[in-house]
Amino acid sequence: MTIELDFTHDPKACSWVDGAAGHADFPVQNLPFGVFSTDGTRPRGGVAIGEAILDLAAIAPLLDGPAAHSAALAGQPTLNALFAQGQAAMTALRRALFTLLTDAARAEAVRHALHPRVDCALHLPFAIGDYTDFYTGIHHAENVGRLLRPDNPLLPNYKYVPIGYHGRSSSIRPSGVDVRRPRGQTKAPAEDAPSHGPCKRLDYELEMAIWVGQGNELGTPVPIAEAGRHIAGLSILNDWSARDVQAWEYQPLGPFLAKNFHSTISPWVVTIDALAPFRVAQPQRAPGDPAPLPYLFDAQDQQHGALDVTMEVWLRSAAMRDAGLPGVRLSRGAMTAMYWTMAQLLAHHTSGGCNLAAGDLMGTGTLSGADSTSFGSLMEISRGGTVPFALPSGETRTFLEDGDDVTITAYAEREGYARIGFGQCTARILPA
Amino acid sequence: MTIELDFTHDPKACSWVDGAAGHADFPVQNLPFGVFSTDGTRPRGGVAIGEAILDLAAIAPLLDGPAAHSAALAGQPTLNALFAQGQAAMTALRRALFTLLTDAARAEAVRHALHPRVDCALHLPFAIGDYTDFYTGIHHAENVGRLLRPDNPLLPNYKYVPIGYHGRSSSIRPSGVDVRRPRGQTKAPAEDAPSHGPCKRLDYELEMAIWVGQGNELGTPVPIAEAGRHIAGLSILNDWSARDVQAWEYQPLGPFLAKNFHSTISPWVVTIDALAPFRVAQPQRAPGDPAPLPYLFDAQDQQHGALDVTMEVWLRSAAMRDAGLPGVRLSRGAMTAMYWTMAQLLAHHTSGGCNLAAGDLMGTGTLSGADSTSFGSLMEISRGGTVPFALPSGETRTFLEDGDDVTITAYAEREGYARIGFGQCTARILPA
Repeated sequence: MTIELDFTHDPKACSWVDGAAGHADFPVQNLPFGVFSTDGTRPRGGVAIGEAILDLAAIAPLLDGPAAHSAALAGQPTLNALFAQGQAAMTALRRALFTLLTDAARAEAVRHALHPRVDCALHLPFAIGDYTDFYTGIHHAENVGRLLRPDNPLLPNYKYVPIGYHGRSSSIRPSGVDVRRPRGQTKAPAEDAPSHGPCKRLDYELEMAIWVGQGNELGTPVPIAEAGRHIAGLSILNDWSARDVQAWEYQPLGPFLAKNFHSTISPWVVTIDALAPFRVAQPQRAPGDPAPLPYLFDAQDQQHGALDVTMEVWLRSAAMRDAGLPGVRLSRGAMTAMYWTMAQLLAHHTSGGCNLAAGDLMGTGTLSGADSTSFGSLMEISRGGTVPFALPSGETRTFLEDGDDVTITAYAEREGYARIGFGQCTARILPA
Repeated sequence: MTIELDFTHDPKACSWVDGAAGHADFPVQNLPFGVFSTDGTRPRGGVAIGEAILDLAAIAPLLDGPAAHSAALAGQPTLNALFAQGQAAMTALRRALFTLLTDAARAEAVRHALHPRVDCALHLPFAIGDYTDFYTGIHHAENVGRLLRPDNPLLPNYKYVPIGYHGRSSSIRPSGVDVRRPRGQTKAPAEDAPSHGPCKRLDYELEMAIWVGQGNELGTPVPIAEAGRHIAGLSILNDWSARDVQAWEYQPLGPFLAKNFHSTISPWVVTIDALAPFRVAQPQRAPGDPAPLPYLFDAQDQQHGALDVTMEVWLRSAAMRDAGLPGVRLSRGAMTAMYWTMAQLLAHHTSGGCNLAAGDLMGTGTLSGADSTSFGSLMEISRGGTVPFALPSGETRTFLEDGDDVTITAYAEREGYARIGFGQCTARILPA
């Protein structure tokens, strides 16, 4: 794919919207898309700018041609139709919005379409047709594999096949919706038979969500060189996991109830355009690793197909809230932990003919760094639940307790460019 | 659940519709629901009766009260809203249709809404939100397990957990749509590295499709005693499988591209009401097997929760068609091969809080009988591809070849009751 850094990422550009200039997450260089409502009814598409949300359909009359058409499409309760138009249309819309929000002469005409973010509810950005979760975090695969197979943590297929499996779409919820601790069937090694009860090893998984834009027809694979164009943007994904349920149920067909009780995504779709300055070479394929098979190899993609996005996980227990203590950071890692690029994931997914559609979700899999300050799950941080860690309240944790708030943030920073933030992916654990 | 055989299954009842009396699949005792179109546009809900399809929205004005409302809902291009109403509404509609189609005095008023089936296209009955595939065929699990672990074919969890995994919704197509042989990554044991090319071990899987009617909210499990009410009906499912792709990709997270290139369903939803006379006791839980855990146990369900439905797989190669030879039957088996009842599958699926919705699809998994005349896949019939079998054309097969037509039929028969047929689930293999 060709990488173009267009004028929308001029770091000196400032929006006339109050508080947008230098905003940590949502400066005018970001312009992420989401679905919001102001009174709980009529969800519609908007763009985050500073502390405000721009109602896209409301400013459609101020735009021309295809951008006006796109903004009007965003008036629907999901962004599927908007992003199904494909990357060129989205880039055109983004440019038109950038111009509108940086041209002070347009402020008076636009201001009626701005809503304070704090007054808005945020919904799922897409009607999610299918959700696929990959396993691209090589350190995570090694860490989990080491718990099972100390001498041979990575399976033989890992460096050839982007490992993935199908997830559950219906139970994905936006940030802020509480998570009910699941009940499930578990069996401790010392027990003769399983029992059914509340999950005792509830975990989060730090992932990024990759949204599909333009889809493909059944039976028509997307070549690797075109795959990037089918990716709409990214959000944060927390793939909550019931480890004790997973251990008992997952042979031979993979995780099922351990993963489908709830998944949380951050509500803003940060576009591939906004992230262009943070593209880097694919860093995880070490010398001596097998070359990608031809259907997964594109020189441009190897050079520019990874993203340097930082992610942080924060935990705040009920006792910490009661004591007025702030959350504690459990890890800081990076998307560069991915062994496969986003384009490789999409090309692989379609390589047998499987059709994708706008609003389909691909999870990266848990992204852990090489050391314990960047592990993406409690399973790894607590060494399979064997090593508790302390919280500032004096409590300890191996897995999540009722009342815990888990918050994931993500952002991209680079000298000479505006910082691009993803906002928050947060939820509280409720008792079973 | 209470089993009531109501008047709609009076075997002496005959419809006034030409050819419906004694029809092998679609007598008035069946009345399966589907989505049809007459000129390729405006798909809408209908009911099969003999060789005709009754346009439901078109006869809504002839019905009263809730049945009229239901018939009008069926005018939509999918049956989701219709079945989301729940079992009581569907039973009421079915009774009203039975009366309309058996009362000769109504014939003149109804006839305009009947279309010859041969002139209609049949579509997917539902917009399928999520697709889950189970693994309830105990003989299949043993046969496949035996290929991998001769001494211990069933894993320790099998008789406790209804094993299932999430499938791909987007690539499900109705009967009659050709199947493109997938390409995929495979590695033979003797090879050093994998390669990417056309699947060499393409297989079918004989399954039944269980459709969800009324759904449940996230975090609210459906108790086993209520689970039957959430099941709308059944179709036939062929879960096409690329065995060589599966063998290389499936560790550690289960099948992915091996299963998501295409799945085929028969277009008619045979309702639970129509199948009531064919309920039988759950036959596979042998003496000495563990009792179901309480969340999966209901005495009524154990007594009446299985279905005696017969299924047949037929193969007809291109050479057989050229020679004017009919298809050959590869197997005849029964739904009683299921180790878990439909209600147990649904209760288990929701037991951790996962929400289901109308139009969600649950596959039974491959249903093989105890002997080789009832094996549900070529993997089993050809003993993992090691034992070819002969076709009437003089050809042999271990797995599917391009041009092969695979047709699955299903029906329920019982002395004193009208035969209930599912129609056909058929597709042809196209070259990669």
